[in-house]
Amino acid sequence: MLTDLGLDELWEYRSSYVRPDDFDSFWDSTLAEARSLPLQVEAVPVATPLRTLDVYDVTFSGFGGDRIRAWLRTPKGEIGLPAVVQYHGYGSNRGSAVENLTWASAGFAHLQVEVRDQRGGAGFMTRGIADRSTYFYRRVFTDAVRAVDAVRALGFSKVFVIGNSQGGGIALAAAGLVPDLAAVHVQAPFLCDFRRALNVCGRPPYTELTTYIAENRRSDIFPTLSCFDGVGFAARAVAPAWFSVGLMDDIVPPSTVFGAYHAYAGPRQIQIWEHSAHEAGGSDDLDIALDAFRSRLELR
Amino acid sequence: MLTDLGLDELWEYRSSYVRPDDFDSFWDSTLAEARSLPLQVEAVPVATPLRTLDVYDVTFSGFGGDRIRAWLRTPKGEIGLPAVVQYHGYGSNRGSAVENLTWASAGFAHLQVEVRDQRGGAGFMTRGIADRSTYFYRRVFTDAVRAVDAVRALGFSKVFVIGNSQGGGIALAAAGLVPDLAAVHVQAPFLCDFRRALNVCGRPPYTELTTYIAENRRSDIFPTLSCFDGVGFAARAVAPAWFSVGLMDDIVPPSTVFGAYHAYAGPRQIQIWEHSAHEAGGSDDLDIALDAFRSRLELR
Amino acid sequence: MLTDLGLDELWEYRSSYVRPDDFDSFWDSTLAEARSLPLQVEAVPVATPLRTLDVYDVTFSGFGGDRIRAWLRTPKGEIGLPAVVQYHGYGSNRGSAVENLTWASAGFAHLQVEVRDQRGGAGFMTRGIADRSTYFYRRVFTDAVRAVDAVRALGFSKVFVIGNSQGGGIALAAAGLVPDLAAVHVQAPFLCDFRRALNVCGRPPYTELTTYIAENRRSDIFPTLSCFDGVGFAARAVAPAWFSVGLMDDIVPPSTVFGAYHAYAGPRQIQIWEHSAHEAGGSDDLDIALDAFRSRLELR
Amino acid sequence: MLTDLGLDELWEYRSSYVRPDDFDSFWDSTLAEARSLPLQVEAVPVATPLRTLDVYDVTFSGFGGDRIRAWLRTPKGEIGLPAVVQYHGYGSNRGSAVENLTWASAGFAHLQVEVRDQRGGAGFMTRGIADRSTYFYRRVFTDAVRAVDAVRALGFSKVFVIGNSQGGGIALAAAGLVPDLAAVHVQAPFLCDFRRALNVCGRPPYTELTTYIAENRRSDIFPTLSCFDGVGFAARAVAPAWFSVGLMDDIVPPSTVFGAYHAYAGPRQIQIWEHSAHEAGGSDDLDIALDAFRSRLELR
Amino acid sequence: MLTDLGLDELWEYRSSYVRPDDFDSFWDSTLAEARSLPLQVEAVPVATPLRTLDVYDVTFSGFGGDRIRAWLRTPKGEIGLPAVVQYHGYGSNRGSAVENLTWASAGFAHLQVEVRDQRGGAGFMTRGIADRSTYFYRRVFTDAVRAVDAVRALGFSKVFVIGNSQGGGIALAAAGLVPDLAAVHVQAPFLCDFRRALNVCGRPPYTELTTYIAENRRSDIFPTLSCFDGVGFAARAVAPAWFSVGLMDDIVPPSTVFGAYHAYAGPRQIQIWEHSAHEAGGSDDLDIALDAFRSRLELR
Amino acid sequence: MLTDLGLDELWEYRSSYVRPDDFDSFWDSTLAEARSLPLQVEAVPVATPLRTLDVYDVTFSGFGGDRIRAWLRTPKGEIGLPAVVQYHGYGSNRGSAVENLTWASAGFAHLQVEVRDQRGGAGFMTRGIADRSTYFYRRVFTDAVRAVDAVRALGFSKVFVIGNSQGGGIALAAAGLVPDLAAVHVQAPFLCDFRRALNVCGRPPYTELTTYIAENRRSDIFPTLSCFDGVGFAARAVAPAWFSVGLMDDIVPPSTVFGAYHAYAGPRQIQIWEHSAHEAGGSDDLDIALDAFRSRLELR
Repeated sequence: MLTDLGLDELWEYRSSYVRPDDFDSFWDSTLAEARSLPLQVEAVPVATPLRTLDVYDVTFSGFGGDRIRAWLRTPKGEIGLPAVVQYHGYGSNRGSAVENLTWASAGFAHLQVEVRDQRGGAGFMTRGIADRSTYFYRRVFTDAVRAVDAVRALGFSKVFVIGNSQGGGIALAAAGLVPDLAAVHVQAPFLCDFRRALNVCGRPPYTELTTYIAENRRSDIFPTLSCFDGVGFAARAVAPAWFSVGLMDDIVPPSTVFGAYHAYAGPRQIQIWEHSAHEAGGSDDLDIALDAFRSRLELR
Repeated sequence: MLTDLGLDELWEYRSSYVRPDDFDSFWDSTLAEARSLPLQVEAVPVATPLRTLDVYDVTFSGFGGDRIRAWLRTPKGEIGLPAVVQYHGYGSNRGSAVENLTWASAGFAHLQVEVRDQRGGAGFMTRGIADRSTYFYRRVFTDAVRAVDAVRALGFSKVFVIGNSQGGGIALAAAGLVPDLAAVHVQAPFLCDFRRALNVCGRPPYTELTTYIAENRRSDIFPTLSCFDGVGFAARAVAPAWFSVGLMDDIVPPSTVFGAYHAYAGPRQIQIWEHSAHEAGGSDDLDIALDAFRSRLELR
Repeated sequence: MLTDLGLDELWEYRSSYVRPDDFDSFWDSTLAEARSLPLQVEAVPVATPLRTLDVYDVTFSGFGGDRIRAWLRTPKGEIGLPAVVQYHGYGSNRGSAVENLTWASAGFAHLQVEVRDQRGGAGFMTRGIADRSTYFYRRVFTDAVRAVDAVRALGFSKVFVIGNSQGGGIALAAAGLVPDLAAVHVQAPFLCDFRRALNVCGRPPYTELTTYIAENRRSDIFPTLSCFDGVGFAARAVAPAWFSVGLMDDIVPPSTVFGAYHAYAGPRQIQIWEHSAHEAGGSDDLDIALDAFRSRLELR
Repeated sequence: MLTDLGLDELWEYRSSYVRPDDFDSFWDSTLAEARSLPLQVEAVPVATPLRTLDVYDVTFSGFGGDRIRAWLRTPKGEIGLPAVVQYHGYGSNRGSAVENLTWASAGFAHLQVEVRDQRGGAGFMTRGIADRSTYFYRRVFTDAVRAVDAVRALGFSKVFVIGNSQGGGIALAAAGLVPDLAAVHVQAPFLCDFRRALNVCGRPPYTELTTYIAENRRSDIFPTLSCFDGVGFAARAVAPAWFSVGLMDDIVPPSTVFGAYHAYAGPRQIQIWEHSAHEAGGSDDLDIALDAFRSRLELR
Repeated sequence: MLTDLGLDELWEYRSSYVRPDDFDSFWDSTLAEARSLPLQVEAVPVATPLRTLDVYDVTFSGFGGDRIRAWLRTPKGEIGLPAVVQYHGYGSNRGSAVENLTWASAGFAHLQVEVRDQRGGAGFMTRGIADRSTYFYRRVFTDAVRAVDAVRALGFSKVFVIGNSQGGGIALAAAGLVPDLAAVHVQAPFLCDFRRALNVCGRPPYTELTTYIAENRRSDIFPTLSCFDGVGFAARAVAPAWFSVGLMDDIVPPSTVFGAYHAYAGPRQIQIWEHSAHEAGGSDDLDIALDAFRSRLELR
Repeated sequence: MLTDLGLDELWEYRSSYVRPDDFDSFWDSTLAEARSLPLQVEAVPVATPLRTLDVYDVTFSGFGGDRIRAWLRTPKGEIGLPAVVQYHGYGSNRGSAVENLTWASAGFAHLQVEVRDQRGGAGFMTRGIADRSTYFYRRVFTDAVRAVDAVRALGFSKVFVIGNSQGGGIALAAAGLVPDLAAVHVQAPFLCDFRRALNVCGRPPYTELTTYIAENRRSDIFPTLSCFDGVGFAARAVAPAWFSVGLMDDIVPPSTVFGAYHAYAGPRQIQIWEHSAHEAGGSDDLDIALDAFRSRLELR
């Protein structure tokens, strides 16, 4: 069943989110601080049974100089490729070196970034939330920007960003923080339109925030969250973006996706899956992203 | 709690269902084809411990000539009675020969039809759905019409049809396909107003359709479903009809029942159980049906 | 899946229940007290649309002289029949006058007794449990015996008792308290082997007892329960008994049914449904009971 | 997620409840009858390890003269204090003598009343509901008024009443039935605006009523309930009241709390916890109540 | 938590399954019949954005000549490769053409077979179960063998088979029916040791069988199932096999995997994941399979 | 129902836990390091409405010098009292200043310690688990010992420790690490016998560990856990201890409590609540602890 507004209402819906006056300066100084540290990208070849692709274990310095891990996959022996930077869902990780081979097999350098600290855990929604400077996602979004820096440092200058769920939220942040991306694809993006999300969503991970407010009887987390809201990043973005949403999603409410979509400042499209839940279009969205990015590269 | 619109809204609600132009011709040709095959009704007496009733194991040829089973129960030794044809709920069957004795004990010939293939299973909502000619319910609804033919072939000319849940949906189909029924009683009828049902219902069996669309990422099943929607059959019906609905039904959304009710072309009444779930009025609905049918027969 | 011991273990299992020394005197005095009050059976004909059966609204005085209700159904105009007294499941009621017609249609006088106070409620497992003299089931079991007295007072001297779930527990009590019953059929009988039941069952209604002990931190309810345990009644019974049990029953643990079965002092049989839950054999058990009782009457 | 209307809608919402014409006379005669019996307050000192407080096991005669139990706690050796009468939640009890010490430690005489019959049970919502004179809550609300009488009989003349959930509903009843209370604090009050509650709430205990109506197919319980609705008591109240509500409460729908709040005839305030469930503000509400009552006493 | 026996017990456990005398002849004649029909393998190149791999849409004739679909993926322009035939889980499908690229990227011809009729459905466990000749899995296992025939007809003679869950059950069937496979890898194989599975498993899809028996009150499905049990196929297999199992699997009970493992007639190893559920080792099992198959090919 | 072994088996059960050789040295050096930092206890009086008690907001330096918070409550103006240090359950906090007043009212100095970082969160079971030196509970248990140091620094030399669930696990750690405690009371202690706990428990928080192993496919967390297991601390303890356990606890398996109990080296008693879940004896356990500690003080 529909988990949120009907389709007509979604087209009309606009988020009540207001970007803080110092949103831009907060992120400018955050990124400046991170970039003041050396990036130190390392890419160590990984021995795999794959014959058509090269895989590298990449590390680079993210927020606070912490080392962030990623897989880089490329078609065997190729250089100078367009790159796709991918962020993953909540509580997941970069996965196996020998899986998720589509982007590289299609001729992209594919950087699969791992979110710090998140292998099989929970509780990240409130980590450090008492202050925006200590909030977990300040680190994660900075890492995401540095991942783009890292893939460029490796010689791949044309960069696309993609992500599903939490990965979609991170990709939106990257889209708002990196001015010259080639394009963006976000599937059921999490971390958007928090006030609305908490009002209409009754399942984790959003309920980590609801529970936190209820148990501590304090709703003063919204100033912090307002610096990390995908609606705010969307309004700064310029790269063409493809969104995807399932109207029966009970994990990321559709209205929050539309909240970000309607605010998106660059060229935008949204693929609506009326009867899908959080999986949205699944591998069909992958086909759409492949097609979209190739058309941006005039490969189609 | 209410699972759908409030009562005032239900009285205003109208289904957005539109009957396909060739709905009538589709069913005319379907029934013509089925009736071109011999009905071959057989009624074999069953040895039971019942002293007041006769029970027969009835078989007849339904869609494609497939043999359909039913119990026929009559007051001992009586003929020339009015008949009640009953269809059952999803995944059920015709039950035991010696149960469900009310209609026969009340002086009706009672034909309890068994839906083909459905003993203890699931997955029927999508069987053959790729094309309306192969859809499971094309067979079932044709069988339902042939059940009326069968009971008449056995000498019972005045025929009522009834059903609960899936059985209610089948009875509505029969009401739309057989022009000269005595009356109809449907309790919480399933298989009505599919688009609405999928939007508001989060439990099986309707979710078999939702899941199918989501997993296959294709919503092109609605053209097929539009030939099997109870709202469409209701608009063709002429016999007097009694509906029953529970406003806390989470299996068959009340709005979908009202969608069929408001479209019903014959004389109609609806019994509303404000605090009931899918059971609606339970045995009280049986009392209402007995009373209604007997008044139609001027037995009251 | 199996919810309790495997089949081999069930054949070996014996309940640890010990009958209190004054079990017999407790029930002797309880029944004597009840029988010291006039039974005052009334049977008012009910107008129904049924042509083959007569239905009477029966009332009689149970425990404390409280009026107990029942339906009596007989084949039209017949007298001197064998009688079946039926007790119903937890939180249910005697149902509609015009349903549950099998026994009467098969030539029995059928008394469908209603458990006092229980229409759509819960919480009966602990009502008055502080003392055996005030316990809810002291009243119910006494009512059950008086129901047998009542059906005999109406002229039906050969009496069978049956029941499913709570009704099975009540029927076992009747079998232990009435010495001259024709036979007994119990399906998934509740209210047997309480200590075992609480240890292996995690669902209502048995958990009403578990919760009560936990919340009051007192397990001194077992002396009370020991006067109402089906294992105790079974050991006093003499009439032939048919048991039925589903090995995947998560409401009445199979071992508790076997606890009563192994203790049963009269001739006994048990029908085992290895893959059934609480429904056990459903209508197949009805067929078995019909067959068994008719063979007892040499009608077969 | 929000379980009911949004905040703006809650401010606009008004209950459709209508007070019966004889509501006042029903309660006048009920209380007169109860007060015609001697109150017989007994307060037996309890030996506890507490050094700062005295605890008494209090009993007094409630409805029908039945003995009601309570704990009375006072600062060691003090008399002439303001008193707080507290009622507890559904299925709970007065708890341990040595817990819940805040009010007494803060300088109040604290009477913790126990609701009759309710230790670890369920099913009270429908007990005796067939007639308002036999309804369970007629007894409970009368007991609540007599508890105020009792604390006064013990020499504490200035009386506050408080309660959470069911206790809040009882406190509202007391506020409507006792004209000279010092003040009232209710947290997530249950037993208000029944029609609305049944329409929007899908969890126990409200569903005991829904199930009762559905199983018995009769909704004629509303005349009874209309004599026990917190909205009705609120309209008679004069003491200053503090309400507390959680907008994500799925046990007591927020709209029903606002229904009572908007009807409250005395001075009123409501504390809104937007992201809390049934716990509302938890111990923060206690701080608010302490502060409010002390300000009423000009202790602050 | 552990969902079945402890590890020590699993090493001791042996299935009670007994292979029917005519198991071999049943399958010999089934395969002979299928092979009497032309295989008609078609492999149509698919246009994809992949640059390192070729993808073909393969169809071939399975049981009864029905056309079965598969993806074939190979490293760009390579022939004469070893092949991996993969079967998928219950209710799934062959997926997207551009995903699941690991095996082909690692230098294998990878045939991803689609189970007939199973896109997003349920109810297959009982389809046609009344007779072994009509049982759904007779068709599926025959299709699986013909898939091996098909990949060989395309010129890939050295064939490995793999599968997860239902796919693991199908792979075991192929291992028992095709004498000259290179090796086998099965992860949490379904469809093994049915009697045990029904006794210990309380979740779908195995419960489709339990429900079927309970609703139809007939357990005569075991003769049919005994011709499709992975324990039976294991005892006929000769190729080296790698098993993987999670001891907290609540969908495929670990004992049933060990039942097949202990019966496996060829060289065998089992990877035990003590704290994993149905996912077993996830992508780590893929690494193990890659390593195992490459060592069989002496590529390591 | 019982969630673990039966009572007889629990008396026989012994944990398979083996204490690492360097367990003692690990904790000796951990505590030495913590104690090398100044404790810096601060106790700031809190203005409350309580008249019988004083409340102080206490802070002191725990592991790594991090500031740890606690409430200290004492009978008004008293000094030189015996002290009770209490630790709280998982994801909770020290609560309100004006609640939980029993111990102070009974004449104890009551230090209610707050576990670091844990207000309304989750995910602590795996935080820093890769190495015992970084594991979250290394910090927490050190904080617990420093809490005892702090209460002594405040002049209360005779110290009892208590806790429920996680708090019980922490109290056991304190009992193993502080040699001269007066006595210990643990209710349903968490963090004991980890291997067993993971095998029999299917609910959070223990499943945070199970999920972590499954998702990371590595069970090498047991070396870390072996330094934090309550069974290990129990074997070092000397103070008299009272345990409490509910045999229907599905959050902390009873066998793991018995694992610690049987290993406990000091005088020990265990209170068994056969029908209780995780709440064990609730406030009755409080009565037992009060009585036990007072008898230790010869106050009884």
